[in-house]
Amino acid sequence: MPTRKPIDHLNCSVANTIDLIGDRWTLLIMRDVFFGVRRFDDFRRDLGIARNVLAQRLRTLVAKDILKTVLYQDNPPRHEYRLTDKGRDLFDVLMALWRFGDRWEPAHDDRVAIHTECGHETHMVPVCAHCGGELTRNNIRIQPPFEIVEARRQTAGH
Amino acid sequence: MPTRKPIDHLNCSVANTIDLIGDRWTLLIMRDVFFGVRRFDDFRRDLGIARNVLAQRLRTLVAKDILKTVLYQDNPPRHEYRLTDKGRDLFDVLMALWRFGDRWEPAHDDRVAIHTECGHETHMVPVCAHCGGELTRNNIRIQPPFEIVEARRQTAGH
Repeated sequence: MPTRKPIDHLNCSVANTIDLIGDRWTLLIMRDVFFGVRRFDDFRRDLGIARNVLAQRLRTLVAKDILKTVLYQDNPPRHEYRLTDKGRDLFDVLMALWRFGDRWEPAHDDRVAIHTECGHETHMVPVCAHCGGELTRNNIRIQPPFEIVEARRQTAGH
Repeated sequence: MPTRKPIDHLNCSVANTIDLIGDRWTLLIMRDVFFGVRRFDDFRRDLGIARNVLAQRLRTLVAKDILKTVLYQDNPPRHEYRLTDKGRDLFDVLMALWRFGDRWEPAHDDRVAIHTECGHETHMVPVCAHCGGELTRNNIRIQPPFEIVEARRQTAGH
């Protein structure tokens, strides 16, 4: 990938996550992983991605501890890609992208998520970790607001 | 942005969403919007992004109906960027990125989300739209599985 302008000055875990996975091919590969793809040639065929680009993105995902390689055949040795615990935690992000897409960028596929505990087709609803109420754009307040963050930064001379 | 390899063949609303917003600067701009940034020069200063790159990404976000421009000053005319209904629905994605970041890519900032209905600092938990139980990677089954999707595609001659 081209050299990236660093975002360290933002001091922000959202920005750090975007820096980690906020790349079109990386996100498409993670989509494939969540849909069950594990092998190099399957990613390549499914996404229509160039071998070198795919290899580079997979290497980075392994280096960043999101995917790990597991040997599935000894002779010749062949490995496949599986989620680490960290990678598994991107589940919420994928479910959120899916929910948005079903609303605003729908496709003609018939892929659905089944919640095995209730047995129904599902999509995700974000709720408050404290009270369990639904979180929406309108009942969340970000603190401190941007004006305060910006004023602090100016005081600090950045 | 460079010409993108199309992903129409995936027929997938997750992929469509990634195609729409799955770009590092675009996601960083959306992060800023959720944190309260609305004006060109504030995005530029906050992100350290080049003017032409910022202008191009904002144009695309307006063209894709995620942001809209609103006049805030008449003379000289100046506008700022606000979320459309579609853009507002990216809230879940940002909250999911935030949750992941706080776990795996923490920063030193003190920005928090307050759920105004219960008054507590919060993060998002994804629950099932049908039964309200927590959704995790382990209690979701994707249907049909990749093998079936792939077999169909081969039959269809792709």
